[in-house]
Parts: sequence; C-alpha cells; structure tokens
Amino acid sequence: MDRKTLVNYIRNRKSCLCVGLDTDPTKIPAGMDVLSFNKAIIDATREFCVAYKPNLAFYEVLGSKGWDILAETVEYIGKEHFTIADAKRGDIGNTSGYYAKTFFDTYGFDSVTVAPYMGKDSVEPFLVHPGKWAIVLALTSNAGAFDFETLTAEGKPVYSHVLEKCSHWGTPENTMYVVGATRAELLADVRRIVPNHFLLVPGVGAQGGSLQEVMRHGMSADVGLLINASRSILYASSGSDFAVAAGREAGAIQREMAQWI
Amino acid sequence: MDRKTLVNYIRNRKSCLCVGLDTDPTKIPAGMDVLSFNKAIIDATREFCVAYKPNLAFYEVLGSKGWDILAETVEYIGKEHFTIADAKRGDIGNTSGYYAKTFFDTYGFDSVTVAPYMGKDSVEPFLVHPGKWAIVLALTSNAGAFDFETLTAEGKPVYSHVLEKCSHWGTPENTMYVVGATRAELLADVRRIVPNHFLLVPGVGAQGGSLQEVMRHGMSADVGLLINASRSILYASSGSDFAVAAGREAGAIQREMAQWI
Repeated sequence: MDRKTLVNYIRNRKSCLCVGLDTDPTKIPAGMDVLSFNKAIIDATREFCVAYKPNLAFYEVLGSKGWDILAETVEYIGKEHFTIADAKRGDIGNTSGYYAKTFFDTYGFDSVTVAPYMGKDSVEPFLVHPGKWAIVLALTSNAGAFDFETLTAEGKPVYSHVLEKCSHWGTPENTMYVVGATRAELLADVRRIVPNHFLLVPGVGAQGGSLQEVMRHGMSADVGLLINASRSILYASSGSDFAVAAGREAGAIQREMAQWI
Repeated sequence: MDRKTLVNYIRNRKSCLCVGLDTDPTKIPAGMDVLSFNKAIIDATREFCVAYKPNLAFYEVLGSKGWDILAETVEYIGKEHFTIADAKRGDIGNTSGYYAKTFFDTYGFDSVTVAPYMGKDSVEPFLVHPGKWAIVLALTSNAGAFDFETLTAEGKPVYSHVLEKCSHWGTPENTMYVVGATRAELLADVRRIVPNHFLLVPGVGAQGGSLQEVMRHGMSADVGLLINASRSILYASSGSDFAVAAGREAGAIQREMAQWI
C-alpha cells in the first residue's frame, strides 16, 4: 500500500487506529479457535481502524498451523487496511532479504517491524520492495527502552541515531518508526528529527499511554500516525460478547481520533 | 543442555565448531529437498562439530511447511549436539515469553539468539527456562555493526553496555553473546568484560574471519567458544558430492581447532 492510499483511508475513516491482533490462546473465549476469534474481531472493528498488526509471537507458538492461521487472517483483512507483520526481524543482508520475501511475498503484508541493532544491511532488504514498508524500532513503549535506546551516544540518544541514519537509507514512502505512547513527552523531539515519517505508536490502552498526548505531539501534516491498541480491544470482554465489546472500544477510540483528523 | 555437558562435548570432540544450517533452496542440488539436504549435512559433519544453528529466515520463507522441516531437523540432530535457533527475536516481556516458549518448548532448541535493542524485559523471558540459553547479539559480523553497535555511549561502545547489562540479568550458565569473527581484534576487549561467558562467533569462512585469531583472542578457561561456519561447509561443493565435501571442510576446521583444545 502506498502512502497516499494510507492517508486517504485515515482521512475518510477519521481514524489512525491500528488493531493489534495479539491473539493469546489463553485469553480468548473457551472453545474458540484463534482464526475465528480474529475474524470476529476484524468484522467488529473494520470500520473504525485503518490497520491491523498481528504479533508473530502469538502465531509462532502454535507451530506450523499458526502460520496458516496468520495467512488466513491476512487474507481476511483484505486490501482496504494496512497490514503490519509485527515480527521485529533483522539479520545480515542476505538473510534479512529472506525475511522480507517471507512477509511481503509469501504472506502479502504491507509492512514488517524491524529491529535496527545490526545496522544498515539488516534494514535495507526491507526497503527494496515497491509499495512495502519497514517499520523500524526507535523508542519502544516497554520498561527496557531505557537500557540501550536512550543511552547518550555522541551527544544524543541512541534512538535519535536510529531515526537519523534510517532516514537516509529509506524515505517517508517506505520507512516508518515505532515510538511508544508511554514516551509522549519525547514525541515532539522525535517529530523534529523525522517531521514527515509515519510513526507506529504502541502503548495506548493497557500500557497506559495517553491518546490525547500522542495526537497532540505526534501528528504531522498528513496525520502521520498509526496508533495501536491490542489488549484493550481484543479482551474488552472475556465473555461471548467479546466482539461487540471490541467494536465498542474501537469505536470509542475512533471518535477520540476524529476530533483531531 | 547445561554448560558442563557442552564443555564435555567440546573437549571430547576437540571441536567448538557450530554448523550453520542456512539451507538456501536456491543453492542446494537440483531436485533435492531442504530436509534431505539437512540430514545429509548433519550425517557428514556430526563427528566434527558440537552445535547446529538453523537460521530461521531460511525456514520461514518456505511457509508453514518450513516449520515442519525445522522441527524434523532439530529432532534429527538429537541430544548430543547443542542446538541454536538463530531467530534474533526480542519483544516486550509477555511477547518475548511466547517466543521463548516456541523455540524451547514447541521446537526443543537449547538456545535462541536474541536482539537486545528493547532491553531487559525483552531478554529476561529467555533466561527462565532451566537448561536453556539466550544468545544475545553484542558485536555482529556484518558491515552494519558499525552503525549502532559501536557508537560510543557514556565512554564505551554500545556493545559493551549490552555485555555488561546482560551479564547482570543472566549468568554464564544461561547467557552467551554473539561476537563476530570479522572483529577478532575486539575479542580481547570483549573477553575483559565477559571472561567466563560462551561466545558464539559467526563470520569465519565465507565472511572472511580468521579461525586462528578467534581461538587466540577468544578462548576462555573452558574454551568458551562456539565458532560458526555456514556457507563454506554447506556449499563446499554444488554437485552430488556436497555431503562428502561438507564433511571434508568440517573435518579440516575441526583439526585446526584441535591444536588449541
């Protein structure tokens, strides 16, 4: 999906919501399978969001059948939502090339999250597929973000180096960054470095980040945000009304976003 | 596998060779399938090595059947070699926990390579499984290692921070580090920080690192090295004699190692 199409979806739906399909087999209603749960969540949230983000950990743990469920989930999402393989991959050049091929060609995702630690040749193979995107980890939403990402290196935090260098390797048409909502006060700083790139923002909802603060500090001229919520939508109810509750929660987030878009 | 067992295998076989099962479907003999190729390589190299390291990228690209091939490969390796899932995973705590479960429980690997960018809670879930190991990326063998890993942060390179912090999260009984052979001159520096940890050293062979230099600078009191070779063994011959050629190459490396062990 190209940037213009994504921005159109955001403006038309007045939403920059990404629903994280972190489908935990231990948290879904008893007797239900992961694929049926995903389909019900997608049906309930489709009109309120512009992107879906399955986290690979929850599919890999199911063994090879998890990958079949992943493929069927991506197909069910269809072409009117931006799809993110939250896989946090990254390896030496020829190997990263195989990861890119897997997620872009075999599974048809629009984008993959990429861990930048190994540098340029680990990121670039994700940037050579037309219409596909690398979403590079910059400043994440977890407690461990303060271990290495925020170390001061040569006058600025490591995540700033990541933002600056990756911005030379790719463009705002094929590169996004992960910046956690739990660091909303740093979003303005991130925006100074990458004024035009899309940011994927996890951490709203269960992790405690404020949607209002993210919109205030993170929006660019064409919105430039995909704000993810996973657990607060997927597990809004643990009962048989889980899909209705998920749709209600996604709708509430969308209405908050609509005030800004 | 515990450390004592691994060290015994190293001393008995006079080898610290790890064979990287980066089985590229485009490079194996025409008409051959990946599993048969892996089994032939394992049979030919078993006596000369102590570890096998499939890189996940080469299996994921095959879709869900790649994971079945991976499972059968691990089973075929058996219990007398240390197994490494070269997956370079890392995510927020509860998610990393699922990756650990996948590779340790579902697939039975002894260890997983872990990307440290996201910090403590992304690494720790790999350290709570008895007899299992996290192998954390510190200083990798690729060109991109100089983008972020070697940035000077608060007086020392980022990879030194990784070595120091991770050494507090785990122990030499459950944590190893990836340090590339192409940086042999830095191995002595690494050894000062982590004198007792095992190091997984890629980059010997096709990537140009010197085995002699790695042994000289990297050995600890109980060897403390797993030195990986992938392409130079797997593709020693492109003909039907590929397994014989692989065994010959692995044997040659083992004999060099025997001079030191």
